[in-house]
Amino acid sequence: MNLKEYIASIKDFPKEGIIFRDITPLMAHGPAFTEATHLFEDFARKVGAEVIVGPESRGFIFGCPVAYSMEIGFVPVRKPGKLPRETVSYRYDLEYGSNELHIHRDGIKPGQKVLIIDDLLATGGTIEASVALVEELGGEVVGCGFLIELVDLKGRDKLKDIEVFTIMQY
Amino acid sequence: MNLKEYIASIKDFPKEGIIFRDITPLMAHGPAFTEATHLFEDFARKVGAEVIVGPESRGFIFGCPVAYSMEIGFVPVRKPGKLPRETVSYRYDLEYGSNELHIHRDGIKPGQKVLIIDDLLATGGTIEASVALVEELGGEVVGCGFLIELVDLKGRDKLKDIEVFTIMQY
Repeated sequence: MNLKEYIASIKDFPKEGIIFRDITPLMAHGPAFTEATHLFEDFARKVGAEVIVGPESRGFIFGCPVAYSMEIGFVPVRKPGKLPRETVSYRYDLEYGSNELHIHRDGIKPGQKVLIIDDLLATGGTIEASVALVEELGGEVVGCGFLIELVDLKGRDKLKDIEVFTIMQY
Repeated sequence: MNLKEYIASIKDFPKEGIIFRDITPLMAHGPAFTEATHLFEDFARKVGAEVIVGPESRGFIFGCPVAYSMEIGFVPVRKPGKLPRETVSYRYDLEYGSNELHIHRDGIKPGQKVLIIDDLLATGGTIEASVALVEELGGEVVGCGFLIELVDLKGRDKLKDIEVFTIMQY
């Protein structure tokens, strides 16, 4: 199955000059959604993931099925004000302004092997923040998996020695 | 397994007088997350779901694994500005202000049997909006499933004749 056939490319969304890669047709198509999840799961087994971490909200889309299918836990990385217990946080700069992400302090146990899953690797700000949060808690990031990689934005360079898995590239 | 043991109850979050039911310990525990997903899946099979709909972002947490395990599609209901193609929208009142949710116009085919999944049934505003969106597209809502029902808030009353499944009640 060519999974790229299930990605819609939308010009000038959310603003002019950007081509938005819309994954909702893939999600809506049972066999395509299943196949993409299987590919993530193969990678998760290969790197020996003990827990899946995913940033809100699109990191939940593939991260939760992979955790479920492996019968391991899923730990969310979320925006400020969403997680009710003690968190650690990481702030990073965007083109305009900045962003802050949180994880529960007890979300990851020291030494735990963590796979981080998100839908898209673009400039890499979100994944860099997620890696920093996991590492602050003593977790070992054994891999990062994405449905889509926007190669020209070089987000992969932010991940240095971490194994990166991407299902499709643009 | 008593799944309630994996829910943390946080007093006065996000504001005074509210007891927040935090599902992250359940998500982080592989066997508990798996069991909850299986319960949703049993309900999905019973009502003959052909597609799963879930509101952003916590509706993705169980909705995506259920779609995956049944090899059917998942269609997100999202906040304004997130879905790049043509949408239909529904606005509803909150205690302070209002909220608006969207679904892609091609997300549901007329006559399709839809199960809507979310983590929490409280006052029912979000699920009422989600039902309205699915029905506007001609879908048949065959059930609504929630991990947690806050019984005193009577959200269930908004769902009238739709079959409601909840895994735990407070």
